Amino acid sequence: MQHPKPAIAIIGGTGTLGSGLAHRLAAAGYRIVLGSRVAAKAEEAARALPAPAGSPPHRGAANEEAAAAGEVVIVTVPWASQAEILDAIAPHVVGKLVVDTTVPLVPPRVARVQLPPEGSAALAAQKRLGPSARVVAAFHNVAAHKLQQDVAIDCDVLIFGDEPKDRAIVAELAKAVGLRGVHGGPLVNSVAAEALTSVLIGINRNYKADGAGIRITGIVTD
Amino acid sequence: MQHPKPAIAIIGGTGTLGSGLAHRLAAAGYRIVLGSRVAAKAEEAARALPAPAGSPPHRGAANEEAAAAGEVVIVTVPWASQAEILDAIAPHVVGKLVVDTTVPLVPPRVARVQLPPEGSAALAAQKRLGPSARVVAAFHNVAAHKLQQDVAIDCDVLIFGDEPKDRAIVAELAKAVGLRGVHGGPLVNSVAAEALTSVLIGINRNYKADGAGIRITGIVTD
Repeated sequence: MQHPKPAIAIIGGTGTLGSGLAHRLAAAGYRIVLGSRVAAKAEEAARALPAPAGSPPHRGAANEEAAAAGEVVIVTVPWASQAEILDAIAPHVVGKLVVDTTVPLVPPRVARVQLPPEGSAALAAQKRLGPSARVVAAFHNVAAHKLQQDVAIDCDVLIFGDEPKDRAIVAELAKAVGLRGVHGGPLVNSVAAEALTSVLIGINRNYKADGAGIRITGIVTD
Repeated sequence: MQHPKPAIAIIGGTGTLGSGLAHRLAAAGYRIVLGSRVAAKAEEAARALPAPAGSPPHRGAANEEAAAAGEVVIVTVPWASQAEILDAIAPHVVGKLVVDTTVPLVPPRVARVQLPPEGSAALAAQKRLGPSARVVAAFHNVAAHKLQQDVAIDCDVLIFGDEPKDRAIVAELAKAVGLRGVHGGPLVNSVAAEALTSVLIGINRNYKADGAGIRITGIVTD
């Protein structure tokens, strides 16, 4: 890559998906700013991230401050908190690439697809943040706990966004965490991967699996 | 299997998906009743189906008559014709297993997910046919033209339906055509595979592929 790696803010960065992405991105040389509702929690978690010699230190902060510090902002929060947390970080993500990973799971029936009126959680995020944020949706189908282990993960990352070059940036992040990113088309298509997550939760139960995933077959990617 | 193979009606059976399923199911020993708007077209196509020695002959008929003759009824019609054709066959599928394969593609933007107000084409089918038909949704993601070739197809079939034993019957049909069926949960979850088809159409364009598909990873099936 010709350009330096962007600083990555991870909102809700002390959860399972956020921690997993943070660890793998940090190990790949990205500078991480972990966000949490409670700054002290994020600071503690940031200290535990791998920091290659000579690389700038990772940070932990309140979500708003983390969003302000990140060049790319990854949102890894539960569906029930998405609206509130997006409202909190909205002033700090103007013009930025926001990677929404939210799956609209509605407990207790999380294996049943229950989509929001906006069509998908990512479309809800774009509506909430307004047109100045460049929302891309990704990382819905990866078993989050596996990101925290040093294992190869047999899963592709479908990436949705209206701008191909923003999708390409997220494909690079996917590659950095050891996954293949696949362009899935415009943001409206995010419903496919969001719905698939409920399907995969049901498949895990039905087949007694630990982390079913998906692969796109029949394509050659670089 | 202990039970004899059910007679399979394929509505819209002269289209690409219908023909492909008909050929492979016939080769696997199922008796096929092909349906078409034009009976003569279906009769001609039925004569071209492989008929193992000693097996009962395949038939072609108008869609309504085919539906009446089938024990399992597979509907392979374009989204734009679904409502009209379901209305035509409705009196003939009471109590039967109806396999809906419809993907709600809205030309010209078929690579863009555009879901119907019912939530999915399969839910629209169930609503149209009423509760006496047992609707299961499947075969959305397989590249239809590949079914007509004598090739292995690297794709799983997600199967959605409210009754596990109906899904199991469809899994057997998937196996007969050389594909692995995976239980995807209740009919409401069909939106995942339907939306994914538009995503795969976009992936075919984007990656210059001939028939991208999907695999569910991390599970063991029999």
